[in-house]
Amino acid sequence: MEKQEYLEVYRHSLAHIMAKAVIEIFGKEHVQYAIGPQIEDGFYYDFELPRAVVPEDFKVIEDRMREIVKRREPWTRKVVTKQEALDIFKNQKFKVELINDLPDEETITTYNTGDDFIDLCRGPHVENSQELMNAAFQVKSVSGSYWRGDEKRDRLQRIYFYCYPDKAALKEHLAFVKEAMERDHKKLGTQLELFMFDETAPGMPYWLPRGWRLYQNLLAYSREIQDVHGYQEISGPVFNNRSLYLTSGHWAHYQTNMFVVPELHRDENGKLVQTEEGKFDMEPVETADIFSAKPMNCQNAMKVFGSQTRSYKDLPIRFSEMDVLHRKEKSGQMNGLLRVQEFRQDDDHTFVMESQIEDEVNDIFSIADEIYNTFGVTYRAELSTRPEDFMGDINVWNDAEAALKRILDKKYGEGGYEINEGDGAFYGPKIDLMIKDALGREWQCGTFQLDFQLPLNFGLKYTAQDGTQKTPVVIHRAIYGSLERFIGVIIENFKGAFPFWLSPYQVGIVPIRTEHNDYAKEVMKKLAAARVRCEADYSDNNMKEKIKKYKNLKDPFIIVLGDKEAAERTVSINVRGSNKQIQNVPLDDFVSLCTRLNIEKTLELPDSV
Amino acid sequence: MEKQEYLEVYRHSLAHIMAKAVIEIFGKEHVQYAIGPQIEDGFYYDFELPRAVVPEDFKVIEDRMREIVKRREPWTRKVVTKQEALDIFKNQKFKVELINDLPDEETITTYNTGDDFIDLCRGPHVENSQELMNAAFQVKSVSGSYWRGDEKRDRLQRIYFYCYPDKAALKEHLAFVKEAMERDHKKLGTQLELFMFDETAPGMPYWLPRGWRLYQNLLAYSREIQDVHGYQEISGPVFNNRSLYLTSGHWAHYQTNMFVVPELHRDENGKLVQTEEGKFDMEPVETADIFSAKPMNCQNAMKVFGSQTRSYKDLPIRFSEMDVLHRKEKSGQMNGLLRVQEFRQDDDHTFVMESQIEDEVNDIFSIADEIYNTFGVTYRAELSTRPEDFMGDINVWNDAEAALKRILDKKYGEGGYEINEGDGAFYGPKIDLMIKDALGREWQCGTFQLDFQLPLNFGLKYTAQDGTQKTPVVIHRAIYGSLERFIGVIIENFKGAFPFWLSPYQVGIVPIRTEHNDYAKEVMKKLAAARVRCEADYSDNNMKEKIKKYKNLKDPFIIVLGDKEAAERTVSINVRGSNKQIQNVPLDDFVSLCTRLNIEKTLELPDSV
Repeated sequence: MEKQEYLEVYRHSLAHIMAKAVIEIFGKEHVQYAIGPQIEDGFYYDFELPRAVVPEDFKVIEDRMREIVKRREPWTRKVVTKQEALDIFKNQKFKVELINDLPDEETITTYNTGDDFIDLCRGPHVENSQELMNAAFQVKSVSGSYWRGDEKRDRLQRIYFYCYPDKAALKEHLAFVKEAMERDHKKLGTQLELFMFDETAPGMPYWLPRGWRLYQNLLAYSREIQDVHGYQEISGPVFNNRSLYLTSGHWAHYQTNMFVVPELHRDENGKLVQTEEGKFDMEPVETADIFSAKPMNCQNAMKVFGSQTRSYKDLPIRFSEMDVLHRKEKSGQMNGLLRVQEFRQDDDHTFVMESQIEDEVNDIFSIADEIYNTFGVTYRAELSTRPEDFMGDINVWNDAEAALKRILDKKYGEGGYEINEGDGAFYGPKIDLMIKDALGREWQCGTFQLDFQLPLNFGLKYTAQDGTQKTPVVIHRAIYGSLERFIGVIIENFKGAFPFWLSPYQVGIVPIRTEHNDYAKEVMKKLAAARVRCEADYSDNNMKEKIKKYKNLKDPFIIVLGDKEAAERTVSINVRGSNKQIQNVPLDDFVSLCTRLNIEKTLELPDSV
Repeated sequence: MEKQEYLEVYRHSLAHIMAKAVIEIFGKEHVQYAIGPQIEDGFYYDFELPRAVVPEDFKVIEDRMREIVKRREPWTRKVVTKQEALDIFKNQKFKVELINDLPDEETITTYNTGDDFIDLCRGPHVENSQELMNAAFQVKSVSGSYWRGDEKRDRLQRIYFYCYPDKAALKEHLAFVKEAMERDHKKLGTQLELFMFDETAPGMPYWLPRGWRLYQNLLAYSREIQDVHGYQEISGPVFNNRSLYLTSGHWAHYQTNMFVVPELHRDENGKLVQTEEGKFDMEPVETADIFSAKPMNCQNAMKVFGSQTRSYKDLPIRFSEMDVLHRKEKSGQMNGLLRVQEFRQDDDHTFVMESQIEDEVNDIFSIADEIYNTFGVTYRAELSTRPEDFMGDINVWNDAEAALKRILDKKYGEGGYEINEGDGAFYGPKIDLMIKDALGREWQCGTFQLDFQLPLNFGLKYTAQDGTQKTPVVIHRAIYGSLERFIGVIIENFKGAFPFWLSPYQVGIVPIRTEHNDYAKEVMKKLAAARVRCEADYSDNNMKEKIKKYKNLKDPFIIVLGDKEAAERTVSINVRGSNKQIQNVPLDDFVSLCTRLNIEKTLELPDSV
């Protein structure tokens, strides 16, 4: 058995054991058991129980499971008829519903674990509980769930278990979980005063001063690179009439995620009028003015391209846009910064001739290399190719895909990247970039999407060398992707200890006593003039408190200034992550060091100057 | 008679003469005359006429008016009863409506001009048309209007006239108008490729690459100064639940200008559901999730202040915010960048103790001085004081107003500024700053608004030195005001020839022939490294065309590079507004010059290096 398959069978079998244990503990007549699949790090089972499962129950359940495993009970698979199945599970309402929903032609199987526990299941399972002797498991958590995920159906309790082949593997996973929890961007976001959420704006982050500096640093870095590569930044309206999205096709295909802003009826004073049912009223959709908050920048970029006559000499034209975007998400899908309803992208729309696609995508790869390298993360690429319902000229598709493959072959070697055959959008093939963080987790960030359709929808043209009017190809492109999400990822990747160039504040200045404040202000001014971001604590708190504050905020350098430093125009430096202090460094040398780190954007801090 | 009063009487009298002329030309039975007030630069009259007034009519009307003036007709004022008035104007439907709407106790007066023209009017007027002999007037324009400004009532033609006491004054005004038209930001915005509008986003500008650079330069300059003054920038959600605006009071008092985003009914696929009437549907207001695009940043700043415990030691806390704002305007009220529906402000909310108000407002004035001075504009201040329906403690009001007056007295001398008694908001007094542009026009840009109420609405507290919990005072503050509007104003102020530091591109690089492109790239790189914004034309267009292009775009410097420059590592500089070329300046000297201009932010360009 493959390792993965083995894991799946073990986990699934242990889910049955868990259900059996819960039934033994709570009593068969008090338990309705629903479903219990294996998942990424173990398994869960959903139950209806007479009372809430509390942490005190965890060990009881785990112990009972171990006991059941030791009983060396055999697992028996049986094929049954639908009526037999209904008879077997007649007291289990969820199972009855599942059985009734099965198509008549489906083979129904049950699994017995020992004599007294039976579950409806496709299997496969172990043959005897004893096979599970080495498996290591423990309760992960209990949470509420709904039968069939439907808020209107029965409320259930879901018991999650971690499950690994042996104790060492479980231990390793628990260490990973602990590390991931310590890196959790929501926790660090609060500790480092980066962002917050308020219930009046779900999925729409508030950026606090330190977080907003981080945000601006990311924007500035992206702009710096894009400038060198000939990108021109534009900004389009946040609200656009639905007619714009009718043209692009997004009103039809992307409405689910759009925040819609209809013109509502108002009285002569501009106050909203309510209907008899207490609702706001509007004109019928056909005649109403209806706006939408833009979910993406593309349509505005098309408008800007179309606002002037364009020649082949002007191409490629690269319009980058960092505007604020809105996408509706279901409340259960939102997750800190990783899934939000309001965000910005390092978005770009490049207009090219077909012959320019390969060079342009190569240039985009060079930008991705430079940016991801600066963050010290590696990445891999996935190519999604022509789907069956593609639109446009098949020769253009073939040429474009061949060009993308040539680039990827050269970069990764043939077969050195994943191809998702037929998974491209109907309007063009795409490349997704998956970065790998410090914990080895993968995150999809960058996307390059070729688009043969949108320029057609907007009737965009350029004058070709032969004088004819041709339609440009558009490349949609992002490297960070959503900045909000990227920040979430890098908070976790760096555990909040950002590289010098990226840190909200780069230097925390600690005058030992208030009599050193004057010198601290002099140092601050000199650093600020060199574009080093500093903060200083001029209060009468003691030195240790001041240092501790900046340590908690993970400032890369904390400089301490006392009599000796003031007299000699030096600073003593506490480097983040190091316990020793570098003493009495000439101020000018420190300024030069900071300037160098800002230019070189190194990942690590130096331990000497 | 005061000069202004004299102007008003003359203009109003000439409006009667114009109506008389139009009636003589079109025939009494074909003309319905509505109203004809005097306005800022002359007067207009609204008519219902048998055909459209065309430019060929202008001279005919003007000539007839001159003829009427020469007739030396007397003006006769009569007091009439309502019934008499109705009899006199029985064939003039608009006059009849006006008369019927007059309260019974009102004295009704008519004015005769000669025998055959009578108008319903309060006066005063000249006694004889001859008094108007020296007045200089000419048609300004004709446009459509509606009776009583109501789109559902009769459509009228409005004939506008310029009118001044004499020919010299009219000539002067026409020169001013011509100059203002040449400076029109909408015209220059297109010519300089700064911004555009699209019908799918009324009042919401698209920022083109050059305009967006200008925008970013303004933001960067504001941030630079605010950083020095201890401001911390934050960013809050664009969409906020109505509950936030219920708390602040804006849902009740500012709804007219809010774009409201109700949660609409959707089917299981997320598509919007339509009612039988073809409208979108929603839950009743009481239970619906209703969001609004934020019309201002204040509420979010309150939330951020309230998210942590604050001590008197932390105050003042200055939260600046540049987020995108939305305010609904009627379509007739929008005007290029000067009145838009989507904009950003250099907004700030400073939280202070009462005792800190004076120091803080002084500091804000120093920021205003610095910023307006950089743009070379002067300004004056207006103070609006406690209204009758004020809220809060009258002693706090008195102290605050006294503090503001002390500052203004010191700055302008007692009586050296305007006081709008009782014109403050109910929540605090305010100071408005009116800047004066190069044409002498005034624009309200900056505002400092004290607010005793909003922190109360949000229950904000800080721990005072005596350990008690106190409510901070908030100062709302903007210097540019709306950045969109400010950009409109400075485009007109500078006629699109922005100071070096502010220009979208600062240097246009013109290689004389393509063989000079390599040296041009070297120059570009060196300038870019010194953070000078350059653009280059590497095409095979000829030198004159290239220079002309950058001249039209008003780049401050156009540098020309040929054999001699490449050989000697020099540049030849065409300075904007000068015809002579500064030849063969060492490249390093030019880079230093640009760096110096960026730092010093001088208004003028040097004519030597």
